[in-house]
This record gives sequence, structure tokens and C-alpha cells, in this order.
Amino acid sequence: MSKIKSDFIFYWDALILLLITYAAIEVPLHLLPAYKPSGVLYILAECILSLCFIIDIYVRYHDPKTSHKSYLKRWSLIDILPAIPFELLLVFGDSGFEIPVILRAFRIVKIFRVASFKPLWEYSSNLNPGIVRLGFFFYYLALGMHWISCGWIKMRMQGMGGSLINEYLNAFYWCTTTVTTIGYGDITPDHSKNIEILYTMAVQFLGAGAYGYTIGNIATLLTNIDVARIRHRERVDRVANFMKSKKMPKKLQERVHHYYNYLWESRQGYDDATILSELPDSFKYEFASLLNREILRKVPMFKGADPNLIREIAVCLKPCIYTPGDAVCTYGEIGDKMYFINKGSVEVMSQDGRDVYATLKDGDFFGELALLLKQPRNATIKAVGYCDLYSLSKESFDLVISNYPDFEQNIQKMASERMNNKS
Amino acid sequence: MSKIKSDFIFYWDALILLLITYAAIEVPLHLLPAYKPSGVLYILAECILSLCFIIDIYVRYHDPKTSHKSYLKRWSLIDILPAIPFELLLVFGDSGFEIPVILRAFRIVKIFRVASFKPLWEYSSNLNPGIVRLGFFFYYLALGMHWISCGWIKMRMQGMGGSLINEYLNAFYWCTTTVTTIGYGDITPDHSKNIEILYTMAVQFLGAGAYGYTIGNIATLLTNIDVARIRHRERVDRVANFMKSKKMPKKLQERVHHYYNYLWESRQGYDDATILSELPDSFKYEFASLLNREILRKVPMFKGADPNLIREIAVCLKPCIYTPGDAVCTYGEIGDKMYFINKGSVEVMSQDGRDVYATLKDGDFFGELALLLKQPRNATIKAVGYCDLYSLSKESFDLVISNYPDFEQNIQKMASERMNNKS
Amino acid sequence: MSKIKSDFIFYWDALILLLITYAAIEVPLHLLPAYKPSGVLYILAECILSLCFIIDIYVRYHDPKTSHKSYLKRWSLIDILPAIPFELLLVFGDSGFEIPVILRAFRIVKIFRVASFKPLWEYSSNLNPGIVRLGFFFYYLALGMHWISCGWIKMRMQGMGGSLINEYLNAFYWCTTTVTTIGYGDITPDHSKNIEILYTMAVQFLGAGAYGYTIGNIATLLTNIDVARIRHRERVDRVANFMKSKKMPKKLQERVHHYYNYLWESRQGYDDATILSELPDSFKYEFASLLNREILRKVPMFKGADPNLIREIAVCLKPCIYTPGDAVCTYGEIGDKMYFINKGSVEVMSQDGRDVYATLKDGDFFGELALLLKQPRNATIKAVGYCDLYSLSKESFDLVISNYPDFEQNIQKMASERMNNKS
Amino acid sequence: MSKIKSDFIFYWDALILLLITYAAIEVPLHLLPAYKPSGVLYILAECILSLCFIIDIYVRYHDPKTSHKSYLKRWSLIDILPAIPFELLLVFGDSGFEIPVILRAFRIVKIFRVASFKPLWEYSSNLNPGIVRLGFFFYYLALGMHWISCGWIKMRMQGMGGSLINEYLNAFYWCTTTVTTIGYGDITPDHSKNIEILYTMAVQFLGAGAYGYTIGNIATLLTNIDVARIRHRERVDRVANFMKSKKMPKKLQERVHHYYNYLWESRQGYDDATILSELPDSFKYEFASLLNREILRKVPMFKGADPNLIREIAVCLKPCIYTPGDAVCTYGEIGDKMYFINKGSVEVMSQDGRDVYATLKDGDFFGELALLLKQPRNATIKAVGYCDLYSLSKESFDLVISNYPDFEQNIQKMASERMNNKS
Repeated sequence: MSKIKSDFIFYWDALILLLITYAAIEVPLHLLPAYKPSGVLYILAECILSLCFIIDIYVRYHDPKTSHKSYLKRWSLIDILPAIPFELLLVFGDSGFEIPVILRAFRIVKIFRVASFKPLWEYSSNLNPGIVRLGFFFYYLALGMHWISCGWIKMRMQGMGGSLINEYLNAFYWCTTTVTTIGYGDITPDHSKNIEILYTMAVQFLGAGAYGYTIGNIATLLTNIDVARIRHRERVDRVANFMKSKKMPKKLQERVHHYYNYLWESRQGYDDATILSELPDSFKYEFASLLNREILRKVPMFKGADPNLIREIAVCLKPCIYTPGDAVCTYGEIGDKMYFINKGSVEVMSQDGRDVYATLKDGDFFGELALLLKQPRNATIKAVGYCDLYSLSKESFDLVISNYPDFEQNIQKMASERMNNKS
Repeated sequence: MSKIKSDFIFYWDALILLLITYAAIEVPLHLLPAYKPSGVLYILAECILSLCFIIDIYVRYHDPKTSHKSYLKRWSLIDILPAIPFELLLVFGDSGFEIPVILRAFRIVKIFRVASFKPLWEYSSNLNPGIVRLGFFFYYLALGMHWISCGWIKMRMQGMGGSLINEYLNAFYWCTTTVTTIGYGDITPDHSKNIEILYTMAVQFLGAGAYGYTIGNIATLLTNIDVARIRHRERVDRVANFMKSKKMPKKLQERVHHYYNYLWESRQGYDDATILSELPDSFKYEFASLLNREILRKVPMFKGADPNLIREIAVCLKPCIYTPGDAVCTYGEIGDKMYFINKGSVEVMSQDGRDVYATLKDGDFFGELALLLKQPRNATIKAVGYCDLYSLSKESFDLVISNYPDFEQNIQKMASERMNNKS
Repeated sequence: MSKIKSDFIFYWDALILLLITYAAIEVPLHLLPAYKPSGVLYILAECILSLCFIIDIYVRYHDPKTSHKSYLKRWSLIDILPAIPFELLLVFGDSGFEIPVILRAFRIVKIFRVASFKPLWEYSSNLNPGIVRLGFFFYYLALGMHWISCGWIKMRMQGMGGSLINEYLNAFYWCTTTVTTIGYGDITPDHSKNIEILYTMAVQFLGAGAYGYTIGNIATLLTNIDVARIRHRERVDRVANFMKSKKMPKKLQERVHHYYNYLWESRQGYDDATILSELPDSFKYEFASLLNREILRKVPMFKGADPNLIREIAVCLKPCIYTPGDAVCTYGEIGDKMYFINKGSVEVMSQDGRDVYATLKDGDFFGELALLLKQPRNATIKAVGYCDLYSLSKESFDLVISNYPDFEQNIQKMASERMNNKS
Repeated sequence: MSKIKSDFIFYWDALILLLITYAAIEVPLHLLPAYKPSGVLYILAECILSLCFIIDIYVRYHDPKTSHKSYLKRWSLIDILPAIPFELLLVFGDSGFEIPVILRAFRIVKIFRVASFKPLWEYSSNLNPGIVRLGFFFYYLALGMHWISCGWIKMRMQGMGGSLINEYLNAFYWCTTTVTTIGYGDITPDHSKNIEILYTMAVQFLGAGAYGYTIGNIATLLTNIDVARIRHRERVDRVANFMKSKKMPKKLQERVHHYYNYLWESRQGYDDATILSELPDSFKYEFASLLNREILRKVPMFKGADPNLIREIAVCLKPCIYTPGDAVCTYGEIGDKMYFINKGSVEVMSQDGRDVYATLKDGDFFGELALLLKQPRNATIKAVGYCDLYSLSKESFDLVISNYPDFEQNIQKMASERMNNKS
């Protein structure tokens, strides 16, 4: 569907919704004895209503999303009945003419259309489905309470002496009191009139149900709001309990605590690796390229390498986080990973940690020898602040370069040279 | 159990349920001073009730699902007591004879049977267990409120001057007001009569409990309705946050958004691969055969291949989705997958994307060379609209054909020929 | 702890709980002006109470679970204050002597002990923690309502003219009306007395909180009840939607539906493999041995094999389910699994399915050649009814026998013999 | 941010919060006709308020977390309006001067600041987000009820004859009755005054909404409390059902039950392996080192080995639990694991279980030969009580030592010596 057309549908939907709401409010008012609308303006409004509803039939019938047949089957009555222009009777009839109630009631049938706008809204907006559901429910509830109030006035008839508005407000007030299950009891049915008792009971059931539904919906909404945070807290508690039960040193416990705090504040508890792993393959490549290509370009080893090779290596980089003071590499251990600094800084230091040879910053890399040779690390490297690093394991590096024989030979030459230098 | 027999059981259950409900409504009415049913019709109804309950004993006793012994142990009293045809006393006794209350009360015992119909309904219908539970609860609640109302009238005795129906309606109205926790307070117990206060308190506890149970049930139902949608939204939010925090280009963000929308609208957020992986092995083969065999038949490479081989390859196909403009293959990268187009179309284009060599549609395939040789892709291929593709990796292809030596030789010959052509 | 001692603690806990409850009910009654207990029996009861509470101090102090020091720190006051035998004052004092309120109030302090019994109950019983929590909550709520009622009577003072019991019932009735949020409003505070208004407000907040807590608890309980069933239904719906959207044949859809029904009815939706995989290693072996050893003994191939070997193979068996008509093996496909029938029966048939060579039953096995040689299946085998089979793959079989060289040689000899027979 | 500065911010936030609360309570009191505060003290309090709010503008403007620009955009009005020192008008004006209502109302605007303190509290405290949310909600609710009460008095005007406090208490009492949905109905709006009816309806909707929100929040909180325990119970139930349906021996069922009880009591249902696997790599190494290094040092095989090697092996140790009587190794089976006892004791016994050769305790190890050679176990080893062991598989051992050629040679020499001794 073209953009213009879909915009038109949107505004048309909004207009029709407005008119339906108007009809749903106005029609029941005729139940009030004192409500006697008249005048050109009122008749004009009614005519516009009929006209719009008639046009709406045309629009819906030609909606590309529904076949004509299924439209006629499901919607024809709901659309045609409210479109009957009965107010014309008023124009042509004599002044004392009363429009039959049934014709007016037809107008309200259109209310069934409202639900059919729901999916549209749900998709276009990014709202929680629970909120959309609650919104629709409150819309229906408000209309329902209006109808109940009008019915209450019609039934009591007695004329409480007040004005139309006061009478209506009292009826709506009674309805509110009942629906919210507050039940002051200052307005109650006449115990000797069965119809009033039945009407009240019906409203009570409806009200209690509506209130219960609202509470249930709120509970569901709230449950779904905190999912990520709750899951994170559970995980942290689990680890904290474990550390306590194993009597680990306080300092380590604090560092772990800081790590999880950092994880939450910087990424809502999910590490990048998890998010990347959830993506479909097609995006995984693009994301990795975007995130990592620049960082790889700086490495002399990859200078002049095939861009496809760099792309494939970019996908293999694994994000990892180090907290202040964590050792990324330890002097003497056999390393099998190269590291790239994405954010933060690390210190290259001697085995005993006394001499700091260098401080590496964003965009630097280290441990590249591990990709060429199996040999012990020749320095200890520690994170200074919180560090976001990428690691590249020898295993995945070898796998990728096996597809690029030229590059592979280059690497092997470099490795053997290093070997010779060393020995 | 034969179909006819099981149908009979179903209708018999329905009949018994109806009669139990009738008894549960009629018996407590005898508490009302003004309720004095009589006449042939009434006695006839009672006789039919007894008769059906007696037949029911026979039916249940011969139910193949329960052993006679366990029936006698668990159900005999519940079935026999209500079947006592005490109304015969009325027929043969003189006119002033009153049936003892206890005999009437036996009828209601049968209500315990209702719960035993529950599992049957749960299995045969596909309803949410929460809805079934709520349905049963409302059934019991309605009966309970009826009993409470009858008891209230019996207790008050005073005769409020109204008719039987008005008296009953007032009692039921009081009960409703209390159970829904609305509590108008227009009908309250006499504060000087302990029994009335106790009765009211009992109803209040019961009512508040029932209302709380209803709300709890609704909350649970609503929680379970949106699970799939909520989970999808969570995933989308996670990725969206990630992209924002990494400042990825707007265009990519939009494409990812469209991808997830498509995933939701076309498959409710689950990709085909996940669903297939959950199936037991026996169905996995059948599903894959049904979905993929036709698509494989078109590939010249597989012409004349063993149907078992084709079936095994069909299982290895992996569904994947590409959004408009995604690159399925990029010129120069080392490919290890062949692709089949299930739905949608792709464009084969030159490295710079200027020349479009061909457009492939549903049922076409490409990249088949990747199954034979490790070599760079010789064209870039991009999705035009949303594309549902299947990919077949060289790895799984090799694994399958290793079981079919003849076919393997064929393939190797084809590969070496290609090699020679190239060089 | 020895059984006898732990039983003693259980009954002692029960006794103390009873006495605490008695004290918590009796003490606030002294707020009622009309409550003047006296007589030997009453004093005796009080003395027993004091005595038991004194003994309880001794018992708790020597509880092996708590150190003396932590006991003195946490519990000493809570245990010692209620144990003060103040009723002795009554015995030795003159008749008009009134026990100070504060001494009586000390008795109730012991209520804090009740919570310390909670973990014990939770572990020994197999109750849902939500139900235990609700049980305790109702216990406290009932006592709280009792105290509130006594306080209400004390505050109003006026003497409503009724008896002690009627007065109490009215107060409790007012409390119930408020706590359940029904609020008839037939008993309300005197608007000119600030204290009454404050008291009522406090009860209202408390009541509304208690009712909300109850509803929340019920919602949580219900959510946790259906977890397994809901998860199963979700899975089934997912597959059903998938099949519909792919327009799979009706018959297959029905078979899948039956499969999941069978899975639910026979194992609550979890297949055996999942459950076994969750077990710790130590039990995994025992379970597998118990389930599978007998079935393996019947296979001629394993006659005389090392029991350890049989045990290790037993662990490798994988349970699988076939629905009526499913093909377990298809003529001509390359098989790599042997099957054992645990329950149900299968038919061995010709390629075209016309001739049935044999029907295999519980305890039979087939496809054993697949463990020796890679060769096409020489028959099609279909499930007759629902079948619970075990499969043993060549891969895991080879892995196990590699540890048993003698057996391995045997098998290889058998395989080569077969080969020769065939050729 | 330095510690001192962040502490200052904390206390400043607390002070401002206090002052905001004071303003939010005091300002609406001016609606009460009888509330006429005066005197030096009152004016002084107001001046301090203004002063603090003015200083607050300075503090917030220089908050390093917000840029000046975004501050001016978002907060300037909310901070400046309440800081207007209007009480100076009172000082300089003549005695009859009345401060315009609008100026007073500005004070309350500052209430929007409260929400901005929320994230701070959430992070620094370890509270459940649901509880923080509920706390804030109750804070706002209490203020809201105060405002509603003041408005109610203002609207009714009539002067109920009581004192200021009594009048206020009655209004607050009416508000409480409504918000908790209790609705006694002893105080109701005048049915002939539309404004009162509208006001009451608004409060009813607000109250019902607030109560529903509270219940929903409690339900969510309770749902999140028991997650771990519920999940554990589910798992146990699943296994218990499985064992029952397979008719496993009672004794085994009991042992499994004890195992899961032990798992829950000692580690809340999570085994150590799961927790360790969730940790990021950087901590995994440290945890494993801390837990396992001492235990490895005792093994003669590792004497003098490179500390890096020991560290890497420490990471490979897998925790496992055995219940009393479980066989860790069985005589004659081919073992591929070495075991270390962390807690508990095991018995080394002959094949028939009659002779106990030795009892091993915390810190001992056994089965070390399995790391050198593939050979049958030469004894059966059973757990005496509950045992926490670590196992080291030959596979991971071999992988680690392949990086330490010297050590590998040593091991191979030991293995061949053993071999020779044996033959």
C-alpha cells in the first residue's frame, strides 16, 4: 500500500472512531425523558453521521486487505444498519413524529467496528499489548457506564426534582460507586421493585467483573515490566550466595558485585555476545562488521588483507568485560587469544606487577602472538578501569584464514620468523 | 472405546449435569416458607430425577475406565444417596406428609460428581485450563449464592411483606452486594441477633474469598495470554537498545526493526528452525520431506538421486529470512552454502551492484558451487523483498552423501571438471 | 538428630503453638469491661501456661541447631517475658488485686516465636510455599482481627445493651465488614470522636492491605499451578500454527496432535530424555541400568558381555515415541541406529508395505545390523499403536566398546562375517 | 565522583526531599478556612524553604551528570517556580495582605523532582524494584489523599461544627473509606450539588485505580519472591512422577528425594557447576583457583608443576554431589575421571563390598590412574555421608597438559612405568 493511501486510512479510521463514539454517547441519551434535542444543527449532525457511515461502507468494501466476499459475510450488517439515514424521516415527517427506538439503536451496532481497529494500532504503535488492551477496555467501560446511567434514569422515572444534568450525574455517580466496588449505599434500588433489584444486581456483577479485570491487567502489566531487572537480580543473588557460602575473600565479592552493576548499568544485564547470538545470520555479519572492522584495520598483521577476510574475522571477535584490576593475561600462562581494546585502558606490567611497561587505550590491541604460536605470555596485563575488550581465539582465527591460502602463508612465514628470532 | 459409546457417555454426562443442577437449585427452595410445590408435574419431575440417578449408578459402575472396586469405594455413597426415590413416600403417604429435610439434602450430594466431569472437558476441548477452572468456579459460586439466599430468607422469617419472588430477589441482591464486596449496606443483619451476624460474617468471608479468587484467576489468565508477544517485544527492545547504544546507522536500525516485524506477522516471532528443532525425530523427517523435497527435485545435481538421499538432504535445509536489500552472498567471499528460494525474489548483481544479471524467484536456487568447491562467490546476490530461503551447508551435504558412495563419486567428478574448466 | 528426639520437638512445637494461640486470644479479652474470669480452673490454666513457657526456655536453650550465645541474643527476651508467672501474684495477693496490663501483654510477645516454626513446616511438608505463607497470614490475620475487635469494644465503652457475646460479635462483624472491603456502613465511628475515626482509618488501611495481599497471593498460587500445562499448550499451538501456515496435510496435522496428546497424558509433556538429562551423573547411571539392562540382556550380541559394558550401553539408550503408522525405518535408507521396543508393537514390512513379515512386541529389538555395518535398511518398520522405543546409535555404541577390546574384536569379527555372507 | 561529594549529594537530596514533603503538606492546608498560620516561626520556616530551593537550583545546575543545557530545558521551571520567595511580600506588605494562591501552588511544583531521585535509590540500595515502586507510590498516594481531604473541606465549607482537627480527620476518613473501596457511606456528597458528585466520582476512580495498582504490585512482588523455590519443586515433582510411573524401587526414590533436598538446603537448588558456568571468563579463573588450587597441591603428581598449569587444571574440575551409599566408582568399570574430596568421606572397598580397605576424607583424592591409563577400576568406592567431590576427566587433563610439554613427558613416563609394573 502506498504511504498516502495508508495515511488516508489512518485518518479515516480516526474520524469514524470519533463518529462512532459520538453515536454511542448520543443515542442512549434519548432514554432520558428530559432529553429532547432539536434544531437544524442537531439534524445536520445526524445527517453527517449517516453520510460518513455510508462512505465508510464504500471504503471498507474496497479495502485491499479483505476480499469482497468475506466483507459481505462478516461486516455488511454491522456497517449497513448504522448507516440508515433515518433522520430524513424527521425532515420529511411532520413535527410530532417520533423516530422508532430500534432505528436509533442500529447506530450503536457500529461499535463492533472499534475492535477491528485494534490490530492496526497494536502494530503501528510500540505499546505494550497489555496497555492497548486496557485502553480499549476503559473505552468500552466508559461507554457501558454511560448506557447503564441512562438506563437507570429511564427505569426510575420519578424525576428526582433536579435538572437533567444533576439527574444524570447522580445516575453516573451511582454507577461509579458500584463499578469501583465502593458501594456507599446512599443510592439504592427500591426493594419492592423487582426490576430495580435485577438491574442493580446485573450492574454489580458487571462492575465487579470489570474491576477484577482491571486489577488482573495491572498485575500482568507490572509483571512484564521488570522481567529483565528481576532476572538480573536473581543471577546476582545466586552468585552472591555462592561466594558467601564458599567464604571467598571480601575483595573478590566486591569486584564481582561491581562487575554485575556495570553489566546492568551499561547493558541492562545482557552482554553483547548474547544479543549478537540472537540475531539472524544476515544481520550478525553486518553488526560485527560495523562494530569491529575499524579495530581490525589498525592491526599491522591485517594490512592489505582481503576485505572479506576482515569481515569474517570481525564476526569471530568476542566481547568481554574486565573490572578494574582484573588480569587479562598473566605472565607465563599459555595464551590462545588476542585482545582488542574497545573502551577503557589496560596496563602491561612485569611478572611481579611492579614495573608498568606501557598503558594501552581504546583501539589498541595486544597478545597478537598467541594467534601465531603457542607460547607463554611474556607480560601480565591488567585492566585499569572498566574495560570492554574483544578477544579473538587462535581456533577461530585459524578456521577463517584456512579459506584464504595467500594470507595463511603470510602468517606462517611471520610465525616462523618470530620463532627464529626467539631461539 | 468406540466412537458411539463415547458419544453416548458425553450426552449422558450432559443430562446428569443438567439434573444435578436442577436438584441443586430446587432442593434449597424448600427452605422458603412460601415455597410449597405440588401437583402431578412436580412429582413426575422428582421421579424422573430418581430414575436417572439410579440408571447413572449402573452406567458408572460399568464404566471401563474405573474398576468396580474403586467405584464402590469412592463413589457409591455419592451416587446412591441422591438416587433414593423418597418422593414415592409422597405418592403413597397421605396429603399432609412432609418429606424429612435430610432425604432432600441427599439429592445435593450428587454435586460432588460435577468435579469428576472436569478432566473429560479439559481434554476434549482445547480451552485454556484457567478458563475451565473459572467456568467451574462460577457454576459453584452461582449455586452457592442461591443456597445462601435461601438460607437468608429462612433465617429472617419475618416475611418482608413482598411476594415470594420479591423476597427471593432481595435475598439474592443482598448476597450479590456482599460477594462482590460492594456492600451498599441497605440490607444488613439485625445487630441483636447473633445468628444473623454470624451468618453475615460467614458470607462476607466467603464472598471476599470468592472475589479474590476470581481476580487472581483473571490475572493468571491474562499473564498467560500474551506470553509469545511479550517475549518477542523483549527481544526486539534488547536489540534496539543495543543498536542505539552502539550508535548504529539509522538505516540498519530500521531494517532490523522491519525484520522483527516480519518475523512476528508471518510466524508469531518464532522462526521455522526453532519450531522444527522442537519436534520429535519421527516428525522432523516428515516435515522436512513435505516442505523441501519439491525444491530439491528441481536441482539438476540431484536428478536421479536416491529418494532416501533426497530425504536426508531435505532434513538438512535450514530456513532463513532476508529483508529487502540484504546481501545473501557478497562477491569474493568464500561461500560454504547453497541457497533455495522458498518465497520472494533475489537479484544476482555485479560486484559494484550496478549490473543486475538476473532475478531469481520462488523455487530457484543459487550458490550450488559452494557444495563442490571452496571458492569465492562470483556475484553479489541481494534480496528484493522479504525472502524466505533455505540454506544447505557444505558440511551437512558432505556428511549425507558420504553414505551414498555412488552419488559421492558423481559429485567429485563434477567438482574436478569444474576445477579444470576454471583453470 | 535421632528420630525420637525430632518427633518430640515436633509435638512440643505443636503444644507451644497451641498455648501461644490461647494466650493471644485470652489476653486481649481483658480489654472487655464485662470479661472477669476467675475460679481455680482459670488460675490453673494460667499456671500451666507459665510452666510450659518456662520449660520451653530450657528446650530452646539446648536446641542443638542454635548456639547458646545466639539464642541469648535473639530469643531470650521473647521467651522469658511471656514466661513470668504473674498469676502467682493473684494467688498470693488479696482478692481485689488487679494484675497490671503490662504483665499480661508480655504473654503475647511469645507470638514472635510462631514465625520461627515456619521453616520447619515448609521443609517437612511438601506444600507449595505460597500455601504455607497464606496459612500463616490467615493465622495472624485472625488474631489481629480478634485484637481489633476487643480494642473497638474497649474504645466505645458505651455498652450497647447486649450481652458480652453479642457485643463481641458486633465488634468482630464490624471488623470483618471493613477488612473484606465490603463496608456496609451500619456500624461506623462517631464522627465527633477523633480517636474512633483514627482507629477506623487504621483498621481500613490494614484491612485493605490484608485483602490486597490475599488476592496477590492467590494470583501467584494460580500462576504457579498450571506452569507445565500452559507450557505444553504453548508448544502445541506453535506447531499447530506452523502446520496450518505451511498447509500441511490434514492427516499429518492430526497425527502430530495425537502425538502431543499422548505426550501429555503419559508424561505431562516432558519426554523421558529431558528428565534423565536433568539428573546428576550418579543417578543417571542407576536409572538407565534399572530401565534398560533387562532389555539389553536379551540381545544375542551382548550375551556374556561384561556387566560394566552393558551398564555403559544402557546409559546410551535414547527413549523415543512413535505414533500409530509412523515409519521407524524405511527400506533402503542408511540406518545408524538399533531399536528396542519398550512398550507397543511394530510391523516389519516389505518396501511397498503390502507384505507384513513379522510383528514385534515389548522386549523385541530390530535394526541391530546398523551397529555393525553401514548398509541400507532391508525392510520398512512401522509402529502399530503408540510405541515407546529406545534407540542406540552406532556412534555411542562404538565409543563404549572401544573401552572393551575383547568385545570389540568379537563385534568386528561378526561384522566381517556378515559382510562376507552378503557378498 | 569523589566519595565526599557523592555523600554530600545524598544528604542534600534527603534534605530537599524533606522540604518538598513539608511544602506539599503545608500548602494545601491553606484551603482550610480555619487554617491561619502566622508568627515569626512560620515566616522563618518559609524563608528557609525558599533559601534551600534557591541553593538547590545552583547545586543541580552544576551537577556533573547533566549538561547545563539539558538542565535548563527540562528542570528550570520545576526548580525556579517553587523557589520564589513570596513570603517576603508578607514581611514587607501590611498585615492584612493575602498571598495569591497561585504563588503558593508554585511550591508544590517541586514535587516532580521526587521522581528524579528514584533511580539513585534504586541503584544504591539492593531493594526489589517492586518494593521501591510501591514505596514511591505510597508516598504520592499519601500526599494525594491529603490534598483530596483539604479540597473536600474547602468544597463543603459548611463547618461541621467540629474543631479544625476533627474536620480534617473526618475528611481524611472519608477519603480513606473511598480509596480502600470500603465505602461505608456515612459521609456522602450532597446529591443536589453537582460539584460534590463530580469530586466524589473523581476520587472514586482514583481510589479504585490506586487500590488496583497496589494489589497488582503485591501480586507481582509475590510472584518474584519464590521463583527459585518453585522451579526447584517443579523439577523434583517431575522426577518423582517419572520414578513412580516407571515403578522404580522405593529405596532409589528416597535417595533421589534426599539428593534434591540436600541440593536445596545446601545451595538453593543450583549446583555449583551451573553458577560457575554463568560467570564471565575473567572470574571463572579466579573462582576456580580459589576453590581448587589447595586441593590440587596435595596431589604428588602435580608437585613442582607450573602454577599456571595448576590454575588451568583447577578450572577443569567439576563439582559433583553424592548421597550416602552412592557408588562413585565400581570395580571393573573403565574409569576416565579422577576425584577429589571437597567435603564428606568415601570408603574404598572390595568388589563384593565386604572389605573396606580405607576411608578417605576431606582433601583426599582417588582414581588418579584414570588420568594416565585406560584401565578398569581396581576397587569400588562409595560415599558414606553426603559428599561434595570434584572430578577431573582425562580428556580435559590431556588438553591442558598438551600446552606444557615438560609436564606431559613426565606424565607419560609415569604412565609407562605403571604399565610395566602391571604387566
